[in-house]
Amino acid sequence: MSKEKIKEFGEYRAKMNERILAQDNLVIKRLFNLDTNTYSEGALSSKVKEMLGLVSSMVLRCDDCIKYHLEKCYEQKVTTAEIMEVFAVANIVGGTIVIPHTRRALEYWELLIN
Amino acid sequence: MSKEKIKEFGEYRAKMNERILAQDNLVIKRLFNLDTNTYSEGALSSKVKEMLGLVSSMVLRCDDCIKYHLEKCYEQKVTTAEIMEVFAVANIVGGTIVIPHTRRALEYWELLIN
Amino acid sequence: MSKEKIKEFGEYRAKMNERILAQDNLVIKRLFNLDTNTYSEGALSSKVKEMLGLVSSMVLRCDDCIKYHLEKCYEQKVTTAEIMEVFAVANIVGGTIVIPHTRRALEYWELLIN
Amino acid sequence: MSKEKIKEFGEYRAKMNERILAQDNLVIKRLFNLDTNTYSEGALSSKVKEMLGLVSSMVLRCDDCIKYHLEKCYEQKVTTAEIMEVFAVANIVGGTIVIPHTRRALEYWELLIN
Amino acid sequence: MSKEKIKEFGEYRAKMNERILAQDNLVIKRLFNLDTNTYSEGALSSKVKEMLGLVSSMVLRCDDCIKYHLEKCYEQKVTTAEIMEVFAVANIVGGTIVIPHTRRALEYWELLIN
Amino acid sequence: MSKEKIKEFGEYRAKMNERILAQDNLVIKRLFNLDTNTYSEGALSSKVKEMLGLVSSMVLRCDDCIKYHLEKCYEQKVTTAEIMEVFAVANIVGGTIVIPHTRRALEYWELLIN
Repeated sequence: MSKEKIKEFGEYRAKMNERILAQDNLVIKRLFNLDTNTYSEGALSSKVKEMLGLVSSMVLRCDDCIKYHLEKCYEQKVTTAEIMEVFAVANIVGGTIVIPHTRRALEYWELLIN
Repeated sequence: MSKEKIKEFGEYRAKMNERILAQDNLVIKRLFNLDTNTYSEGALSSKVKEMLGLVSSMVLRCDDCIKYHLEKCYEQKVTTAEIMEVFAVANIVGGTIVIPHTRRALEYWELLIN
Repeated sequence: MSKEKIKEFGEYRAKMNERILAQDNLVIKRLFNLDTNTYSEGALSSKVKEMLGLVSSMVLRCDDCIKYHLEKCYEQKVTTAEIMEVFAVANIVGGTIVIPHTRRALEYWELLIN
Repeated sequence: MSKEKIKEFGEYRAKMNERILAQDNLVIKRLFNLDTNTYSEGALSSKVKEMLGLVSSMVLRCDDCIKYHLEKCYEQKVTTAEIMEVFAVANIVGGTIVIPHTRRALEYWELLIN
Repeated sequence: MSKEKIKEFGEYRAKMNERILAQDNLVIKRLFNLDTNTYSEGALSSKVKEMLGLVSSMVLRCDDCIKYHLEKCYEQKVTTAEIMEVFAVANIVGGTIVIPHTRRALEYWELLIN
Repeated sequence: MSKEKIKEFGEYRAKMNERILAQDNLVIKRLFNLDTNTYSEGALSSKVKEMLGLVSSMVLRCDDCIKYHLEKCYEQKVTTAEIMEVFAVANIVGGTIVIPHTRRALEYWELLIN
C-alpha cells in the first residue's frame, strides 16, 4: 500500500459526500453537519473524541470509518503508543474478530506517519 | 465505476449461487427459495418489501446485499428521492457508521439509473 | 403482559428523554430532533417510513426500538397482515436470531390492537 | 434463579411461537420449519450442530437463543467441560462484550444440570 | 431505580465471575486477567481508557458492559459533561438504536453520582 | 480467483501480525497468544473448535476470519459436506445477510481442496 492510497481514499470520500449532499435530503445533510460538530473541543478534547470515534469504528468493524478516524487522530497528534492502546481496547472488547481490521488499521497508520 | 460493474456483480452472484446449490444442502436450498418468496406481492407491495430489504441491508452494513436490493428497487421503479429517504432512515437508525456504505450505495444507484 | 405495560414504557421513555435533554448536550439534542424529522411525510409516506424503522430495529435487535416503531405503525394504521410481512423480512434477512424479538414484538402488537 | 425459570421460559416460547404461527405468514412458517431441520443428524452430529448454534448465539449476544441452545446441548449430553470450551471460543472471537451473556449462560446451564 | 440496584448488580457480577473462574477453563481465566490489564495506566490514562471502554459498550449495545464502565468512569472522576460527550459520540456513530441504552445509562449514572 | 490468492492472504496476514507484535503492546500480544490456545485439543477436538470458530466468523460476517478458519478446517480434515452444514447453521442463525459471505467462503474452500 503506497502513500497514494491516502489521497485516493480522501478524494473518493469527498466526491461521494458531494454527490450525497447534492441530493438535498434534509435529514442526511443535517446528520453530516452534526457528525462534524461531534468531535469539536468541549468538555473532552478533540483528541480524546477522535480516539472515541476510532475505537467505536473498530468494534463496529468499519474499515473506512477506521481510516477516517486514524487521519483525524494523526492531525490531533495521537502517538503510535496511544494508537496501540486504542487498538488494544478495541480488540479486547470486540474480540479477535477485530484483528483483521487491526492489521489494515496499522498498515494505514504507518502510511500516515511515514 | 463503470456500467460493467453491474454485469460483473450479477455474474459472480449467479455463478456462486449455482455452486452453492450444487452442493445439495437441503437447508441452504430451502433458505434460498424462501428468500425469493419473501419479497413477492402480499399485504405489502414488492416495492415496499424491497425497500425494507434495502434498509435492513444498510443498517447491517452488507455492501453486496445493498447492491442486490438497489437493483430490485430499480426494477420496482423506486425513485431517487425515495431511495434517499431509505438512506436517511438507515443513517439515522444505524448511525454514521452507515455513511461509507451510503457512498457506495449512491454510486451504484447512479450507475443503475444512468 | 397487560395494557399497563404500554403506558409504563411510554412514561419511562418520556421521563428519561427529558433528563437526557436537560443535560443540554447540543449534539444529542439535535440528533433527537433529527430523529423526529426522519419519519415525516416526504417522497415516502410516514407509514412506509415507520415500517422501515421497524424492520431496521428488528434486524439490529433492539426491543425498545421495536416497541416504539410498533406504536408508530399502529398510529399509521398498519394492519396485522402488513406487520407480519415486516416481521418476515426481518427474520429472513436477520436470521433466527430475530425470533425471540419477534415473539416479544407480536406480544406488544397484540396489546396495542386489542 | 430457580428451576421454575426453565419451565417459564419454555412456556412463554411455546405460547408465542403458537401465536406467531397462527398468523399464517408463509415465509415465517417455513423459516420455523427450516430452523428445526438445521440441527438434525447429517454429515455433522446434532450434538456438534447444537454447539454451533450455541456459539453463534453467544457471539451475536442473544440471551434467549443462548438458553434455547443450552437446553438442546443438555439433551445432546454435552458435558460442562465442553460447554466451557464453547464459551471460550465465543469470548475470544466475540470479545469481553460476551462476558455478561456468559454469566447468564453459566447460571442457566447450572440450573439445567442440577 | 434505587441505589440498591448498584449493589445488586455488583454482587451478581462478582458471584457469577467466581463461578465462571471456578470452572478452570484456562482461556477464559486468561481473558478475564487480560481484561483488567487493558484499562491500567499506560500511554493513555485509565480515565481515557475507561471512556474508550464505555463508548465501545454503547455502540455494541451491551447494558451490563455500559454499567460496568460507568462505574469505572465514576471512580476515574469523569464528569457528567464528559459522560454526555461520550454518549454523544456513541449516539452519532451508532445511531438512534443507541438511544434506549443511553436512557438506561443516564439513569445508572445519576444513581452513581447522587 | 487463483490458488495464488491463498498464498497472498497468508503472507499479508503474517507480515501484518509481525508488525502488530513489533509494537510491543502487552495486551495485544497476550490476546494473540490466547487466540492460538483457544483452538487446541481439549474436552472438544481442534476439529470441532475450528468449526465453532468458522460459524462465529460467518454470523459476525468477517471475510478474513472466515478464510482463516476455512484453512484451519481444511488442516483438520473437515469434509465439504461438513463445511456445508456449518454454512447452513450460519445462514439460518445469521440470515440471508450471510449469503454474500457464503459465496466467498465456498469459493475459497474450493480453492483449498482443489
